Amino acid sequence: MKDQQKQVDEWVSQYKMGYWQPLEIMARLTEETGELARELNHRFGPKKKKAEEDTADLENEAADIIFTLCCLANSLNLDLDRGFKHAMDKCYGRDKDRFEKK
Amino acid sequence: MKDQQKQVDEWVSQYKMGYWQPLEIMARLTEETGELARELNHRFGPKKKKAEEDTADLENEAADIIFTLCCLANSLNLDLDRGFKHAMDKCYGRDKDRFEKK
Amino acid sequence: MKDQQKQVDEWVSQYKMGYWQPLEIMARLTEETGELARELNHRFGPKKKKAEEDTADLENEAADIIFTLCCLANSLNLDLDRGFKHAMDKCYGRDKDRFEKK
Amino acid sequence: MKDQQKQVDEWVSQYKMGYWQPLEIMARLTEETGELARELNHRFGPKKKKAEEDTADLENEAADIIFTLCCLANSLNLDLDRGFKHAMDKCYGRDKDRFEKK
Repeated sequence: MKDQQKQVDEWVSQYKMGYWQPLEIMARLTEETGELARELNHRFGPKKKKAEEDTADLENEAADIIFTLCCLANSLNLDLDRGFKHAMDKCYGRDKDRFEKK
Repeated sequence: MKDQQKQVDEWVSQYKMGYWQPLEIMARLTEETGELARELNHRFGPKKKKAEEDTADLENEAADIIFTLCCLANSLNLDLDRGFKHAMDKCYGRDKDRFEKK
Repeated sequence: MKDQQKQVDEWVSQYKMGYWQPLEIMARLTEETGELARELNHRFGPKKKKAEEDTADLENEAADIIFTLCCLANSLNLDLDRGFKHAMDKCYGRDKDRFEKK
Repeated sequence: MKDQQKQVDEWVSQYKMGYWQPLEIMARLTEETGELARELNHRFGPKKKKAEEDTADLENEAADIIFTLCCLANSLNLDLDRGFKHAMDKCYGRDKDRFEKK
């Protein structure tokens, strides 16, 4: 995700404000997570306002979460690729027998 | 993020269970977001249990969110790269004068 | 919180739909939590759009979370008073020496 | 919810630290919301580790959210009863025809 982190950094770097504080970014992440939840309830929940084929809004809400994580990562020098590799290693290690194989 | 989506799909495809339902994945995403929040409060909040230099746990919690988003995206045929491009276009379009430039 | 649970039940009972499914209510709770986060960032975060004295919106967002919890509790026969008593007992028991006393 | 707010205040008032900052409490609320989500997925989601009758853990997680909201409310002089009344008024006003009546 080096490319995504770099794109976000180039955008933020134009502005005086720079990155927000960690707990400010966290509050924003909670807000974005809530927007994805609302969108999913509109598609799969009790209200069903939207057809299941229309996926653009979900895609955009999911991407807003990734954008926010890139902000957090850049501001704290996190390497999301390294974190993701660690997550996959955990899948193939600790969690490999957690579910029944095909 | 094609590569991340593919890695997650290869792992999930080994198992009978397959992808969870959208609102189940959403609940998991909320759980993972909560774990990142806890980690940030340990680093930057009132408890300050951890040194600011130690970033591995934050990196891993952020990556668990990305992993969960890849599950959601794969199960609903979302293209996270397209969503991310849309997010960046919004930054350079609608939001370009939202903050003061350097 | 018997009174709040009862008020919510009287309102929901008028409608054919009844209570949503647990994971649907959970997604709604995530959405409401996100709205409170946004409101707090407007007041105390980087954007500071609002004066600290203006508390009505925060009060309303916090109450929407309580309303949603009452829906969950009613649909699953949870007694929020009993849960709250348990939380307070934990404070005076397990957590009583967690912070320095005055 | 005057009583719950008062109980929380009596407990917090014993300690030097006092209430956390708003965005710190928000991060904690996100963490507690995540714990409720995990508990709901254990009961109603793909893992189904727990019987539906066992409700104590859900009750306690829901109450931890209420406890955290009381902390936020006390630290910012919010009146949760007033907020809840506003939420119910909205139900009987703006939202009264949102769903089909019995």
